[in-house]
Amino acid sequence: MGGCLVVIQNSGMTDARLPLIIYSPAGLVPSAAPVRKATKRLTALGFDVTVDTSALSKQQRFAGDDDVRLAALHRIAGAAPSVALATRGGYGLTRLLDRIDWPLIARSIERGTAWVGYSDVTALQLAALAHKAAGPHKVEEGTTAGFWAGPMACDDFGRADSSEGGDDVTQDCFVEAMAGDLEAIGFRTEVGFDGLDVSGRLWGGNLAVMQSMLGTPHFPQIKKGILFLEDVNEHPYRIERALLQLHQSGILAQQKAIVLGAFTEYRKSPLDRGYNLKTVIAYLRSLTATPILTGLPFGHVPTKVCMPIGRQTNLLVQGRDALLLW
Amino acid sequence: MGGCLVVIQNSGMTDARLPLIIYSPAGLVPSAAPVRKATKRLTALGFDVTVDTSALSKQQRFAGDDDVRLAALHRIAGAAPSVALATRGGYGLTRLLDRIDWPLIARSIERGTAWVGYSDVTALQLAALAHKAAGPHKVEEGTTAGFWAGPMACDDFGRADSSEGGDDVTQDCFVEAMAGDLEAIGFRTEVGFDGLDVSGRLWGGNLAVMQSMLGTPHFPQIKKGILFLEDVNEHPYRIERALLQLHQSGILAQQKAIVLGAFTEYRKSPLDRGYNLKTVIAYLRSLTATPILTGLPFGHVPTKVCMPIGRQTNLLVQGRDALLLW
Repeated sequence: MGGCLVVIQNSGMTDARLPLIIYSPAGLVPSAAPVRKATKRLTALGFDVTVDTSALSKQQRFAGDDDVRLAALHRIAGAAPSVALATRGGYGLTRLLDRIDWPLIARSIERGTAWVGYSDVTALQLAALAHKAAGPHKVEEGTTAGFWAGPMACDDFGRADSSEGGDDVTQDCFVEAMAGDLEAIGFRTEVGFDGLDVSGRLWGGNLAVMQSMLGTPHFPQIKKGILFLEDVNEHPYRIERALLQLHQSGILAQQKAIVLGAFTEYRKSPLDRGYNLKTVIAYLRSLTATPILTGLPFGHVPTKVCMPIGRQTNLLVQGRDALLLW
Repeated sequence: MGGCLVVIQNSGMTDARLPLIIYSPAGLVPSAAPVRKATKRLTALGFDVTVDTSALSKQQRFAGDDDVRLAALHRIAGAAPSVALATRGGYGLTRLLDRIDWPLIARSIERGTAWVGYSDVTALQLAALAHKAAGPHKVEEGTTAGFWAGPMACDDFGRADSSEGGDDVTQDCFVEAMAGDLEAIGFRTEVGFDGLDVSGRLWGGNLAVMQSMLGTPHFPQIKKGILFLEDVNEHPYRIERALLQLHQSGILAQQKAIVLGAFTEYRKSPLDRGYNLKTVIAYLRSLTATPILTGLPFGHVPTKVCMPIGRQTNLLVQGRDALLLW
């Protein structure tokens, strides 16, 4: 399902170092090492890095209790750095949704903050859309301000198993996105979508997190959008069940296109007998007329692109080459 | 969390053998042995057992493709036996919900059928409530007709590891329920609910299946109800996330009480650091004023009670003894 990545680059990174704050909104960071490594790597990439005071807090499985993590989120929003980068996901953001000061988040975006992350951070991103805190704001063309589906500090800049702390394509894409130079991402999709040309608001993220928001006031009502999805540790039948729920809720039919990223690290069952991700996608395609594309380089995989959530986006396919432009 | 079970028995089983059909609405049955064993055991318990023609069908991980399983469901509804008992759960019923002939299901209940099962069968039970196919119907007092949360053929009557094929309490409770003699179930709950006395429609089932129906037209709108829940293979953080979704959707606040059964077979994580099912329940109790009781003998455990779904029920607690009466 992985696809070749084409990043359209307009110019290099600006000389001014962009202020970037690393913070922890969800799961705890087990050790300081990946945060140190990410700080070093992000500094080398040209950012002016600060680690939030509670980034390494621990309470049970969380990076501090709800009050601590909520205060961190509001503190970052108040500081309004150019980039607010989550350390990692895990679980914890849905716990905060009822208490987040959405106008404060909206103001941070008006002041130019790009909030970046994936996985559990999907909860923040989608709820911000639902609470009109993600824009559109009166910000200039080509701004980076808003919510970005993209890497996280520990996962993508702080890995011990890489000399540079992460995947080059992921890091280059992130640097370009944060510099305001990323206008599109490209990937290789399956045959059958040649000539597809649709436009809509780009939204989505982690399927299980999205599923856990359905029916709540934090779930955004996006029609005629381009919905991207990824997940990890979920058996194909669970992926299907969640997609089926989106279908039965009318959400798939309301979209211009569905774009699937990586669905990884699940354990097969001896009862599957040929049932797999391919049959799941074929089944979903039999239910909905909305095009379902695969191959988006995004998810719990080393190589992931950056995408602006809520932004008006054009999905173009030529042969097997797909392009998401904003 | 397990509790002591008290079954109120009014009379013995009637002499007439109740027609019972074993069928497969969801996952495939890997071998015929448990169905044979269940047939033998259920016959010994006084039922006139038939195994549906497609009960052992196989297509990928399903007991036949969607058409085959849908036809089985409609065939059983048409036959309207006293008892329609699922072989097992797995995954498959949500696939059928858009296509089920609900008036046909409703007529089977008018004709006296008790549909029994749990786990994935929750999808059928809740959707029947949503589509007004589960009652109330013009049926006599003390009828067994309707949907019952209860055992399944393979899991509870067909186990190879038991000389009798299953748990005695589960089987006795089932026999009494199907004979129309079960008017209440009792269990031992935690301290703190002494004197609780609430009434409402009984509904619920498997938490993950219920979660996968939220936002769809198949999710019932039950207010002032008594909601019971169980799950298997779900880490406490996932149980919490799903319960939090029910809270954020307003569903917990709309209920008179939440009654938790067994949540079993999950794998702990080294990152939990004291986070567990107990802390999850304490957290949920801090969010909602609705009483959340534990100890219901129901779920993916050998000892499980039978409960009539959608029936007006009274929940009484004296000391730590809880009673659900209908």
